[in-house]
Amino acid sequence: MKVELKPAAVRGFRFAGVSAGLKSKAGALDLGLIAADRPAAAAAVFSANRVKAAPVYVTADRVKSGRLQVVVANSGCANSFTGAQGMRLARDSCAEVARLLGCAPELVVPSSTGVIGHLYDFAKFKNGAADAVRSLREDGLADFAHAIMTTDTRAKTASTSFKAGGSTITLAGAVKGVGMISPKMATMLGYLVTDAAIGPAALKRSLKSALPASFNAITVDGDMSTNDTVIIMASGAAGNRAFGAREQAAFDRAVGEISAALARELVRDGEGATKLVTVEVRGARNHADAERAARQIANSPLVKTAFFGCDPNVGRILMAAGSSGAYLEPDKLVLWIGGVKVAASGRLLTEALEDAGTAMKEREFVVRLDLRLGKSSARILTCDLSYDYVRINAEYTT
Amino acid sequence: MKVELKPAAVRGFRFAGVSAGLKSKAGALDLGLIAADRPAAAAAVFSANRVKAAPVYVTADRVKSGRLQVVVANSGCANSFTGAQGMRLARDSCAEVARLLGCAPELVVPSSTGVIGHLYDFAKFKNGAADAVRSLREDGLADFAHAIMTTDTRAKTASTSFKAGGSTITLAGAVKGVGMISPKMATMLGYLVTDAAIGPAALKRSLKSALPASFNAITVDGDMSTNDTVIIMASGAAGNRAFGAREQAAFDRAVGEISAALARELVRDGEGATKLVTVEVRGARNHADAERAARQIANSPLVKTAFFGCDPNVGRILMAAGSSGAYLEPDKLVLWIGGVKVAASGRLLTEALEDAGTAMKEREFVVRLDLRLGKSSARILTCDLSYDYVRINAEYTT
Repeated sequence: MKVELKPAAVRGFRFAGVSAGLKSKAGALDLGLIAADRPAAAAAVFSANRVKAAPVYVTADRVKSGRLQVVVANSGCANSFTGAQGMRLARDSCAEVARLLGCAPELVVPSSTGVIGHLYDFAKFKNGAADAVRSLREDGLADFAHAIMTTDTRAKTASTSFKAGGSTITLAGAVKGVGMISPKMATMLGYLVTDAAIGPAALKRSLKSALPASFNAITVDGDMSTNDTVIIMASGAAGNRAFGAREQAAFDRAVGEISAALARELVRDGEGATKLVTVEVRGARNHADAERAARQIANSPLVKTAFFGCDPNVGRILMAAGSSGAYLEPDKLVLWIGGVKVAASGRLLTEALEDAGTAMKEREFVVRLDLRLGKSSARILTCDLSYDYVRINAEYTT
Repeated sequence: MKVELKPAAVRGFRFAGVSAGLKSKAGALDLGLIAADRPAAAAAVFSANRVKAAPVYVTADRVKSGRLQVVVANSGCANSFTGAQGMRLARDSCAEVARLLGCAPELVVPSSTGVIGHLYDFAKFKNGAADAVRSLREDGLADFAHAIMTTDTRAKTASTSFKAGGSTITLAGAVKGVGMISPKMATMLGYLVTDAAIGPAALKRSLKSALPASFNAITVDGDMSTNDTVIIMASGAAGNRAFGAREQAAFDRAVGEISAALARELVRDGEGATKLVTVEVRGARNHADAERAARQIANSPLVKTAFFGCDPNVGRILMAAGSSGAYLEPDKLVLWIGGVKVAASGRLLTEALEDAGTAMKEREFVVRLDLRLGKSSARILTCDLSYDYVRINAEYTT
């Protein structure tokens, strides 16, 4: 199966993205809907932040049933750290959408992204929701993806199809999130929809198995949002027979691949990012060590500014690995930047640095650190730290 | 006792700072000496990074004796990740200085700071060392402080005097370090000298008790150097009688206060920093929670860019606290920025944000988060993340 970075129609779902005036920029899309024709099997994962947004609480509660029909997502306001008022706003918003679509309110879940600590205008929301319901289309996923953008520079969608259970199954998704992107649990807003006939327990297993190598393996700034949510919904409209083990594995692989493709898009569009860097640590004594070292390298401001400057700064990479808490022996490790070996036997390979600097001029490259102590590895996608990251985040908000 | 941000002569010590040509910039001071007239009581603490520089290994080994006579410190080259060659260079450098001064090589310790992975030119070092020995002066601490600068914008010294044991005791220090500054253990190069007559064990206790509220309570970028070292040396030239408990406490307080003053200078001169921010978390269930939350806030790129933009972005501060692993309850906490209460009872105090934004225009302000769950607190000094941090670190090196 091939994952393509474009939207697709998925039988049993309609999508919309409209401008409700929740963003300050006039005409910007800021309200999105995903509506299944009937209740869909559903699963979701959320931010591990102890400060969670109101829509996260509402969604987490409602998805426990294993069935959802509608997602209503807004940008321009995170509805986070908004107390009882925020909870009421999230529930009222769902109730309004349920009323417009004639479905049960507990089958509607909210998502919000934008500035923390503020409520959005409910009157504007209502007008926008009515507009969104009128705009629902089978080929509306691109509009939905636009409506959830904040500092994203482009809408991010992906899709794939494959045969299983006697039917062609389509899986499509949309994500947003270019800052406050990091660790543990899904770290952005992400929506996957499929026409597969599959139960919520299998969906949840499939989503969870996709996380470690996708949404949990990326970082832009090491900051974990309060609103992170990934939802997967299955309409069953493909009419497939129940998956056997092999078909279930194919479905899991599709969810894994589309998640990885979308996660990669998040980092490629990271705030101010000019480069996508894969940090791979192998040869660690255990997985925790590999992950610690990879994350520390991927989050180090000194390493990330060196990426921006195309500077093969081996010292900063080793400094980060060494301070990560991972066990390592400086004399044993081998380091490659962009395929060029730059450190081994406890010393810098000075003669290789020019080639490494050239390799870093590419928009994408790999930093590979082999600790040569064991068999565990980990891989984290990150981006560089540029002037634009500072500009975007010093100017965004209030 | 009053700590002043200026150098002082300390009986029993002479200092020098000269240009040895180890830095690429012609004429820049890059080789410093601290020489005691005779072997001094000494103690030191070092980087916890698993990749440690050669001079750190040499110094850690030699200070075990509790006695040192000379520190030879260079900038322009970190002599880190340089393997056996680096160890030989560090030892040869000490031997050369010992020869010039006519003291035992094992009483001389090296410090290096600058680019990782390279060796410095030993011929240049020898010429510079001879020059430095000729330049030793009682009032040379400012020159020494200049010679250890890398991306520092100014030399950083402090001094204080107080009466104890029947004598006037002087304590003076110099530090460098404005990037790769963070956690656990001394996180820069720092030198404290005193004329007190005091043994190495008491010196070590005094230094260690000073760390938590000084060099271990600061961060510029969350990155821990491979070369971090703080050395304290006592010449005994004050001729005081042995300290009683109260006098020892006064000495400890002096070491604590001068360390805190120097640590603060490091952050004030943080790479690209325009603001010094004290992050204070109180009311935590335990100290680990308080420290975790304070560090996460102090290291968050989103929080630090908001500081730079004078943006009272409460959401980012709470996001960082919430993702730190510290236990907190959003509805209980109270947050102040620059003395202005901006969040309480689970909501943003929108009407206060303008005042908070004004308070953030000061060069120094406090972010105080009261979790209202217990009695533990922690305090971390940090700075903002500006365009200049990116400029400095994207352009520095190779």
